[in-house]
Amino acid sequence: MTDTKGLKDTIACETRISAIEDDRLSYAGYDISELMDNRARFEEVIYLLWNLHLPTEIELNYFEKELRKNYAISDAVEQCILIQSRKHLHPMSVLRSTVSLLGVYNVNAEESSVEATYEQSIQLMAKIPTIIATFMRLRQGLSPVEPREDLGFAANFLYMLNGKEPTELEVLAMNRALVLHADHELNASTFAARVCASTLSDIYSCVTAAIGTLKGPLHGGANERVFDMLQDIRDHGDTVTYLQEKLASNEKIMGFGHRVYQTQDPREKYLREMARELTRGTEDNLWYELSKEVETYMKETKGLIPNVDFYSATVYHVLGIDSSIFTLIFAMSRVSGWIAHVQEQRKNNKLIRPRSMYIGLRDLTYIPIERR
Amino acid sequence: MTDTKGLKDTIACETRISAIEDDRLSYAGYDISELMDNRARFEEVIYLLWNLHLPTEIELNYFEKELRKNYAISDAVEQCILIQSRKHLHPMSVLRSTVSLLGVYNVNAEESSVEATYEQSIQLMAKIPTIIATFMRLRQGLSPVEPREDLGFAANFLYMLNGKEPTELEVLAMNRALVLHADHELNASTFAARVCASTLSDIYSCVTAAIGTLKGPLHGGANERVFDMLQDIRDHGDTVTYLQEKLASNEKIMGFGHRVYQTQDPREKYLREMARELTRGTEDNLWYELSKEVETYMKETKGLIPNVDFYSATVYHVLGIDSSIFTLIFAMSRVSGWIAHVQEQRKNNKLIRPRSMYIGLRDLTYIPIERR
Repeated sequence: MTDTKGLKDTIACETRISAIEDDRLSYAGYDISELMDNRARFEEVIYLLWNLHLPTEIELNYFEKELRKNYAISDAVEQCILIQSRKHLHPMSVLRSTVSLLGVYNVNAEESSVEATYEQSIQLMAKIPTIIATFMRLRQGLSPVEPREDLGFAANFLYMLNGKEPTELEVLAMNRALVLHADHELNASTFAARVCASTLSDIYSCVTAAIGTLKGPLHGGANERVFDMLQDIRDHGDTVTYLQEKLASNEKIMGFGHRVYQTQDPREKYLREMARELTRGTEDNLWYELSKEVETYMKETKGLIPNVDFYSATVYHVLGIDSSIFTLIFAMSRVSGWIAHVQEQRKNNKLIRPRSMYIGLRDLTYIPIERR
Repeated sequence: MTDTKGLKDTIACETRISAIEDDRLSYAGYDISELMDNRARFEEVIYLLWNLHLPTEIELNYFEKELRKNYAISDAVEQCILIQSRKHLHPMSVLRSTVSLLGVYNVNAEESSVEATYEQSIQLMAKIPTIIATFMRLRQGLSPVEPREDLGFAANFLYMLNGKEPTELEVLAMNRALVLHADHELNASTFAARVCASTLSDIYSCVTAAIGTLKGPLHGGANERVFDMLQDIRDHGDTVTYLQEKLASNEKIMGFGHRVYQTQDPREKYLREMARELTRGTEDNLWYELSKEVETYMKETKGLIPNVDFYSATVYHVLGIDSSIFTLIFAMSRVSGWIAHVQEQRKNNKLIRPRSMYIGLRDLTYIPIERR
């Protein structure tokens, strides 16, 4: 048997969906710089991850039409979000439960044919933004905004969240953030989805498992804490002494370093650019400037460079997204990858069932309770 | 890197909770035959799995008191089960969603101290039987039965399910079934719970992920299909020709063989005994006799011996449990093991994050959509 800790460097499966090699990230053979430089939209990338080739115009039009007509959620689901929208509840728990309920309400949830899987995948993908926007508005005491089928995935989400049509630059930024988070090889949530899929469980179970796993602070949630830090720095007034104090008391500075990247996180620079462009000439430029100061200090004193979470905090804030739901935005994008991995696992399935090493006591004799 | 298929024979973690060695199963050092022969109750075994030692009388009394006072579910949870209790919904999806909602409604769900983890563990453990019994009764058009704090775990569940106090023999059988299913090393659902726990996610996320994983037909659900088969055989009239026909058309006979046991499933004989005792002299003896015929035929022609699922079908049926919720009974027991593994994972945590082997295309160039 092979003994590993946390399965680090252990290959759990083969994939054609994404790769992290030499500090580069690629989706189905396309380096993310190709997708970024050519401004690929998120819908194209979902199609790519699920089909392992970019869509033709006809394929993309059909795919988008399918997605758009599934944006709306039922009254039952909206009611369920309303019940859960009290302020103190954890947004990721609400998403976990609501996605699980989508599976309960879908009468075809137990079908696992290729066609049924596709239909369930489209529904999950299309409805998660509506669930998130509905939850956020209800929690803020606002009425939910109906989705608009004439808008693409990114634009429609921002429209439902903020109640007004986003600018072209905002849509571009949202698309970029979605594309950059869409897949990331076997991260813990994707792996949880594949473990679940490997018992041939339904897709809602897999995505629910993934959401619950992403909820953990060692996986999702870093950009939320980045934004908390930026606010703390603003209140503190001096970036360098703030960081010196934190580092002196051995506190972790969020948004730096990554388990699988050595020299750079290839996603970070695109979010940095978007943060700069979105905040240029506005009062939100403060967040970009503070971020730059933190980046410079960390590079000079610790040799650390920012990861994908670092500038996404500023980007999301400027797009009108409250920091309490940053991890939901992560989930809204990553669900495309989770679904791709579930589909791939089903195609050539093998139960994922490792062993554990027993290190406890052995051969104990049961002593009746009155004599213990 | 180590390449494995389905992580077979790969050690993913160390554990002190349970071991499968030489076709024997032990919990924290006690062979299950010790626990069976001494009629350990399920509450003792939950305590054992969570604390790695058997309780003293004082410890067990306190633990049971804590469990019993948490049997009841809130009106909000009952309402949520009512909405989900329409007949065509999958019982495991309902359990998955309801457990997820327990986490949404628990205002302390995000606390992860040892004390909070213990309180959440007790709540989950105590409420799952009530959720299952409430669901089943509502689905049958019956009123839910309030839990009774003067009854132990097994007796209270049967009381809530059937609306009448179970006999001593029924309570013994239920206890045995619960103890035998409580833990089983790193099966897929337990592994999913540990992957989720390894991101430091909350316990409700972990148990929700595990329930979704157990839902898959390669993991849970086998005893439900065993009972379907026994009914088919009764309707068919001749066990041997029924089996011959099935085997001739390459259909799998449910309830035989196991991935980690070679010569015997050490849990099976106790359920066989219970099936015989429970049905002796009643018309349900038919199910035991049919099971024996199947067992004999499979042993003689295929050299296969039954696993834990085979006789549990008859036991559960006789206890008044509908075969559509057999997997819920599995979950009701295994949640004790899932929680033990989550607690253990937290104590010495390391993110579980394997790698995948990329086998797709590389270095593709993005072609604008109009030229594809």
